[in-house]
Amino acid sequence: MEMNIALLPGDGIGPEVIAQAVKVVKAVGKKFGHTIHFEEAPVGAAAIDLTGDPYPDNTHDVCLRADAVLFGAIGDPKYDNDPKAKVRPEQGLLRMRQKLGLFANVRPTFTFPSLIHKSPLKLERVEGVDFVFFRELTGGIYFGEPRGRNEQGTKAFDTNVYSKEEITRLARMGFEAAQKRRKLLTCVDKANVLATSRLWRETVQELAPEYPDVKVEYEFVDAVAMRLIQWPKAYDVLITENLFGDILTDEASVISGSMGLMPSASLGTDIKLFEPIHGSYPQAAGKDIANPLATVLSAAMMFDYAFGLKEEAQAITDVVNKSLAEGVVTEDIAEGGKAFKTSEVGDWLAENL
Amino acid sequence: MEMNIALLPGDGIGPEVIAQAVKVVKAVGKKFGHTIHFEEAPVGAAAIDLTGDPYPDNTHDVCLRADAVLFGAIGDPKYDNDPKAKVRPEQGLLRMRQKLGLFANVRPTFTFPSLIHKSPLKLERVEGVDFVFFRELTGGIYFGEPRGRNEQGTKAFDTNVYSKEEITRLARMGFEAAQKRRKLLTCVDKANVLATSRLWRETVQELAPEYPDVKVEYEFVDAVAMRLIQWPKAYDVLITENLFGDILTDEASVISGSMGLMPSASLGTDIKLFEPIHGSYPQAAGKDIANPLATVLSAAMMFDYAFGLKEEAQAITDVVNKSLAEGVVTEDIAEGGKAFKTSEVGDWLAENL
Ligand SMILES: CC(C)[C@H](C(=O)O)[C@@H](O)C(=O)O
Ligand SMILES: CC(C)[C@H](C(=O)O)[C@@H](O)C(=O)O
Repeated sequence: MEMNIALLPGDGIGPEVIAQAVKVVKAVGKKFGHTIHFEEAPVGAAAIDLTGDPYPDNTHDVCLRADAVLFGAIGDPKYDNDPKAKVRPEQGLLRMRQKLGLFANVRPTFTFPSLIHKSPLKLERVEGVDFVFFRELTGGIYFGEPRGRNEQGTKAFDTNVYSKEEITRLARMGFEAAQKRRKLLTCVDKANVLATSRLWRETVQELAPEYPDVKVEYEFVDAVAMRLIQWPKAYDVLITENLFGDILTDEASVISGSMGLMPSASLGTDIKLFEPIHGSYPQAAGKDIANPLATVLSAAMMFDYAFGLKEEAQAITDVVNKSLAEGVVTEDIAEGGKAFKTSEVGDWLAENL
Repeated sequence: MEMNIALLPGDGIGPEVIAQAVKVVKAVGKKFGHTIHFEEAPVGAAAIDLTGDPYPDNTHDVCLRADAVLFGAIGDPKYDNDPKAKVRPEQGLLRMRQKLGLFANVRPTFTFPSLIHKSPLKLERVEGVDFVFFRELTGGIYFGEPRGRNEQGTKAFDTNVYSKEEITRLARMGFEAAQKRRKLLTCVDKANVLATSRLWRETVQELAPEYPDVKVEYEFVDAVAMRLIQWPKAYDVLITENLFGDILTDEASVISGSMGLMPSASLGTDIKLFEPIHGSYPQAAGKDIANPLATVLSAAMMFDYAFGLKEEAQAITDVVNKSLAEGVVTEDIAEGGKAFKTSEVGDWLAENL
């Protein structure tokens, strides 16, 4: 197969972890006989520094002509804590999601036997955890209008808005995923307070009869925030709106003890983007110490979700597991054993694939 | 002292747990020589059944003429999962908060040595946890207008809105609490996305110089959702808006392992209300098995926050600790030991105060 992959390294450790994923993707191409073209483009603070825009038109064009996008991370401390900053790296991320139509953010949570002891939760609570969030990513309060301030600047407002279509296309993805998994779908909302949540619940209730093999549960976002910690094994597929998804997927990411390894996919009708869930870790940037495994596993998701190549995806997952088993890991998970550099882990994965 | 206390038992187990708190409050009155008058009024589903309104005017009047309000819980399954229901018990709760001006919800999280093993978190993560949330309770997306549907019903919207005044009065409470505690204030927002959050951050930044002894940190809501599980001991006082507070205080409530014991206060300029953080547990209602300790500890908060009577508050806390030490507890925490009835625990507390 011939594939065009856009590389958006972004900020902080982004370039370093993307570089390792590229090594692994190239090794997959060699092993399975695929021709893979890469095209790189700036995004985030890196793009602001270059062009003044966190998501330049040229970067958008690079994504549009690619078959899949591999994304690193965005964010730079020089733009934080300045509520009056005019351009922020995150705006680039949001604009990218919207312009590429990436309406579904898929975030699996699962455990690695060799890392589960790092979970803040007790072993019996977290062992065997395996659920996946479908977070709506291009709607809700992230994009709703009007938003801003009154004239005097003493009052601020944001608008949360959802249409039935937006809810339906996200919910269908969740239903379909549930059909292939343990057949439980949890709709997470705040229907006891929000009009948008009531439309979510109503829409999901209307769709449910089309998926008679899927059991649907409705839970309030505050209850899920509790139960994710108490009984994370109870969940299979969860669907939710943009803001609730932001909070809950991050909460979910730490329970497995392997936050640094969790991949994600952001899916649109045409374009699919893959990225580690961790941030840009500015403190670690340039030190060759960042853990590249989440980005490498995001590349595995790419072969599966974007190209339907399950064997290639599995080969990556296998070599990641091998690196964990043999202790070829970065300092964040080395635990007294030898800590390998980011680039060394990437080299090892590519060689051992 | 002479005190008028409004009792709003509400739904589910509300009446049973309030009845135990009343026994304890009466015992305090006897011991310390206070004359305490109680006036009871319906709220929630109970009030809908009686009057069609979840927060009837008469209940409001009872609260207005009281010095403090003791509240049970609200919510009934017959109103859940019906997105089209016209009246919902929760509307009563929200209207009550707004009409009484209860703008600050104070939710402490701490541990009980005898219950800490019930925490889903590992002991070393949770031992010694001691923080308190100040959640804004009468603003934000809970009340903002416009909210509702478009004409065809295919689109729904909610409005998040905050004024500088609303943020200021809540933030000042947080600063003052931090001054009396470990002098760390965390402002929780989503300033990288929301206009309202940027006003929160800006307002807190402007207030900070007035409290030079308090260290202020700014964290995104998604990061806090993670760190509450990973490093809960890092927090002291947290301030946040209504919706974030709803999610995060519930998340916080389960980490101590003693969710069933956590009290709360909702403070306004004139009126102060006290309630357990747990819900109405309809499954347990009428069985005399509900744990009354959170409501009893809410009564302790009442003596402290509403009447400035710290000795009385301490006497309640002491007798609760004694009941835990001696195993006079309900089935949810009895663990193989004898399980006492709700009413038996209340009697024991009143007798042993
Ligand atoms: C950086 C921020 C705008 C973003 C979000 O809130 O969506 C991030 O937290 C995420 O979840 O990808
Ligand atoms: C019942 C509901 C409206 C309420 C809220 O969201 O405020 C509850 O979750 C709470 O936190 O007291």
